[in-house]
Amino acid sequence: MQTVLTIAGFDPSSGAGISADLMVFAAHGLFGTACITGLTVQSTVGVRPAHPVEASVVGATLDCLQEDLPPVGIKIGMLSSSNNIRVISSYIEKLRLTDRDISGHVIIVLDPVLRSSSGRELVDYAGVELLRERLFPLVDWVTPNIEELAILSDLKIAGRDDLPAACWTLQNRTAQLPGGRLGIVATGGHLDPPDDFLLTPSGEEIWLPGERVETRSTHGTGCAFSSAFLSRLVLGDSPADAARGAKLYVAEAMRTAVGRGLGNGPLNHLWPFDQPNIEVSDAAERSAG
Amino acid sequence: MQTVLTIAGFDPSSGAGISADLMVFAAHGLFGTACITGLTVQSTVGVRPAHPVEASVVGATLDCLQEDLPPVGIKIGMLSSSNNIRVISSYIEKLRLTDRDISGHVIIVLDPVLRSSSGRELVDYAGVELLRERLFPLVDWVTPNIEELAILSDLKIAGRDDLPAACWTLQNRTAQLPGGRLGIVATGGHLDPPDDFLLTPSGEEIWLPGERVETRSTHGTGCAFSSAFLSRLVLGDSPADAARGAKLYVAEAMRTAVGRGLGNGPLNHLWPFDQPNIEVSDAAERSAG
Repeated sequence: MQTVLTIAGFDPSSGAGISADLMVFAAHGLFGTACITGLTVQSTVGVRPAHPVEASVVGATLDCLQEDLPPVGIKIGMLSSSNNIRVISSYIEKLRLTDRDISGHVIIVLDPVLRSSSGRELVDYAGVELLRERLFPLVDWVTPNIEELAILSDLKIAGRDDLPAACWTLQNRTAQLPGGRLGIVATGGHLDPPDDFLLTPSGEEIWLPGERVETRSTHGTGCAFSSAFLSRLVLGDSPADAARGAKLYVAEAMRTAVGRGLGNGPLNHLWPFDQPNIEVSDAAERSAG
Repeated sequence: MQTVLTIAGFDPSSGAGISADLMVFAAHGLFGTACITGLTVQSTVGVRPAHPVEASVVGATLDCLQEDLPPVGIKIGMLSSSNNIRVISSYIEKLRLTDRDISGHVIIVLDPVLRSSSGRELVDYAGVELLRERLFPLVDWVTPNIEELAILSDLKIAGRDDLPAACWTLQNRTAQLPGGRLGIVATGGHLDPPDDFLLTPSGEEIWLPGERVETRSTHGTGCAFSSAFLSRLVLGDSPADAARGAKLYVAEAMRTAVGRGLGNGPLNHLWPFDQPNIEVSDAAERSAG
């Protein structure tokens, strides 16, 4: 059971952020650790202002985990502040100096969360630049949705046909270290049909057919996709298989979700497990004092 | 699938705090939400300083969750600051005003975490007083270990025989609202044999035999016990059955844990689940760029 790390925000309603990521990792048989970059106050109805965690705490957390529970894979989500982007970049730079020699390459998937699904901006313009210039060159994969891809590639995306050019533009402008190329999964959840487009580091183009699931339980689908994609890469899937598997995982997690809350409810992250085998006595007595 | 809430600290290594609590809830078939009171920087080796979350963020989080995903049970763990104790007490006071009329009594279990298992003080003296005077009267159960019980009852506890008197003292000095009595599970994990002592709100005394599990995986056993105890109460267990079941749950989680990290590793919180049913292609190709 390998260890994977999520660096992301915190969502009290467990639909997104590190709580969701830890469940996705568990559903793939992986042990998850977590570094929180910001506390959001949110429920299924929407996101209120986020409270960034101080960069010094983020840095100390990453160092502490690295010493004791070094991950074989990392998922990066919401980063909350430019200082956090800097600290996380420094951490990964150190990792990249050693990871080819000692423990093998640590797989890193970055979900470039620029705004929440309810429309709130989570990263400012300077943050986007920093993300693209400093962090993208250090990671293996990014998983932007259409809107994020448009911002990151500086191209308009009117529909499905615009995806390949935008991905090529983003890949070409990212000088990945040490001389590699950025892998991109552009998630087309808002397209019809909701197909994803994969551009691999070697320049292979792959369309991944999606299916529309009719449900209100759509909170954190992007988080779940990127964590599932990372999980499957860590477990040895090829990129295309990992993206396909992650897509199926998310679709099933939407399909089997119980409607919860007044807005867009959380996914059923643990669907790959059967019901837990806990026996509880059916005594009517309750503990209420 | 009912919703339960944990109000506790955050542990990046997932062994304790809200990450562990959410796993315990899931292992009991419950949906968990979480409010973080403080960020600790810790691994299996020990706890470094905690960073309290601002009371205003804690309050906003509790209100946000209550509006959209009201819990039927609450577990309270590390509180990090006196201001957090005040905000949480206010939240529960409001809950107690309405919960008998509308949705039934919300079961609340408080794990009075006063210091970490590695010995660091997590609550100062004023915090202990506030906890005992303001929060204890509002909850149904507290789950102190021997050391915490000694502090809370102001009595010396040299061994097993001292537990009942200390529990009676603590129960008698707590004027639970509205006129009820505080239930206490004194966890004897450091006794030999590691038996627990249960004093119910109605004054029943019950000894719960424990077993010593030989393992280094002991990180967060107190967190796991209190969350499992709450889970079973919510599911309808009697207090004695809930405590017995929670004890068995923790023992099995220790027994089946994989040694992880250099110190005291996390429990196997998800043992009640079988292996996840995720197929991963065994393609040797890795995503490394």
